[in-house]
Amino acid sequence: MAAPHRFDPTFTDNVINSMGPKTSPRMRQLMAGLIRHVHDFARENELTVDEWMAGVQMLNWAGRMSDDKRNEGQLVCDVIGLESLVDEITFTLAHEAADAPTATAILGPFFRADTPWRDNGADIVVTKPDDAEMAFMHGRIIDFATQKPLVGASVEVWQASTNGLYEQQDPNQVEFNLRGKFKTDADGRYYFYCLRPTPYPVPDDGPAGKLLELMDRHPFRPAHIHILATHEGYRPLTTQIFDRKDKYLDNDSVFAVKDSLIVDFVPRDGDSKAALELKYDVKLVADA
Amino acid sequence: MAAPHRFDPTFTDNVINSMGPKTSPRMRQLMAGLIRHVHDFARENELTVDEWMAGVQMLNWAGRMSDDKRNEGQLVCDVIGLESLVDEITFTLAHEAADAPTATAILGPFFRADTPWRDNGADIVVTKPDDAEMAFMHGRIIDFATQKPLVGASVEVWQASTNGLYEQQDPNQVEFNLRGKFKTDADGRYYFYCLRPTPYPVPDDGPAGKLLELMDRHPFRPAHIHILATHEGYRPLTTQIFDRKDKYLDNDSVFAVKDSLIVDFVPRDGDSKAALELKYDVKLVADA
Repeated sequence: MAAPHRFDPTFTDNVINSMGPKTSPRMRQLMAGLIRHVHDFARENELTVDEWMAGVQMLNWAGRMSDDKRNEGQLVCDVIGLESLVDEITFTLAHEAADAPTATAILGPFFRADTPWRDNGADIVVTKPDDAEMAFMHGRIIDFATQKPLVGASVEVWQASTNGLYEQQDPNQVEFNLRGKFKTDADGRYYFYCLRPTPYPVPDDGPAGKLLELMDRHPFRPAHIHILATHEGYRPLTTQIFDRKDKYLDNDSVFAVKDSLIVDFVPRDGDSKAALELKYDVKLVADA
Repeated sequence: MAAPHRFDPTFTDNVINSMGPKTSPRMRQLMAGLIRHVHDFARENELTVDEWMAGVQMLNWAGRMSDDKRNEGQLVCDVIGLESLVDEITFTLAHEAADAPTATAILGPFFRADTPWRDNGADIVVTKPDDAEMAFMHGRIIDFATQKPLVGASVEVWQASTNGLYEQQDPNQVEFNLRGKFKTDADGRYYFYCLRPTPYPVPDDGPAGKLLELMDRHPFRPAHIHILATHEGYRPLTTQIFDRKDKYLDNDSVFAVKDSLIVDFVPRDGDSKAALELKYDVKLVADA
């Protein structure tokens, strides 16, 4: 409950109680909670008209910047930690139901649903930057309960190039560069070549960037690779893995790092295509 | 303080503490409060990814609909009572500093800063609807402390037509219809002809309308006239006055009604231009 205050004590209840009988129970719960928190925020901080209007303009600006390649409203949520928090809530609830599968992380705004299938062993670095550090990434998809490998599971990966841009942000990268969908083989294995990821700033030319500036924060994300793993009969898993050597691990601008998602790139011998190697197994939980 | 929860207990503090030393003290206070409330809301309601994303899409939609004639982000705030609450906070703080001037109300999204001056006695109903009920509105602008009339004060008024539309929403009304700026005469008086206002729905073809629908609420605002009164050396006053006969007084879709803002239209005799009369005095508080 909020602290006592000197404003109209009935105002917030009146707004909440204006909801009609046809409101769904979940909608009623969410809107009542949202209204109460927004009102408490305004009262506790004695929000001024100018401050409120500055917030409105920032939200309108986010909407105007958004299109099918950019979701600025999502990015605004990301820089205040909301997407990572919703992810943690989702993961905690799943965890309580099913012990401890692989930790999850946010999908982020750069996922593409139409990413093409590639064969195991493929190189997703189609447009190769001059400063590429190549890595061989491999691992297995495993049933969390039985520890048995899952054959024919799907692993989708995406990463930014060394200039900090995903392919859809960068006209100099071919479409679907640094993306791929792989199917696990008869041993449950997937493997491909990719970049050792590099840190990059989230787009800071919109309201999310303005918020970061006002909060005196940098826009950088630590180097990471996105993973979405799915298999029939199992819960899909969205995660990101982070390079232990990255300097932004402790202050990711979107707060997605978890200890269990930090990985080590190790030297790889005898492979002319990659000097580094990364092994990463993903555990999936069967549907209830 | 929020209730104990079973999620990462350090997450919210980490996000708040990521603000750097150059954040202004007020920004730090507002962002810390906003982040804490948004995170508490998400945890208390175990917000799902789909629910969060539905909210993001709604905010982006509001931004896309907004332009120089429409502020949908503002309207979304209005239907959850936020603009009226910020107004109440502003009024309460002013009140504590200076006893009780005229109550305030929200500016709303239909104010136009470029409204033309008109002479006292003018008729602001330039495009006259068939179902117009004409009223003669008059009153004085008074110094709150001395009760003396203020000469040369400015009174700006605006109202919707009987079809529920303000002139900038309606191609069939001439520009600045149902708007005017008046200067008080040597007795501190202003007077003009206007419509008896009629109730109307806020625009419900965007996210604000969708929210109202999801909350099973009607979009109507009780009949009202907007007033903005200013005079050099005094605090500007924004208010709305409401017709006591209106059926939506108790459930204004934007929660702006206050008892002291309810007024009575009374019969007017011997005036061929108007069968109704409304007297309304506005009290302004001198600058500190």
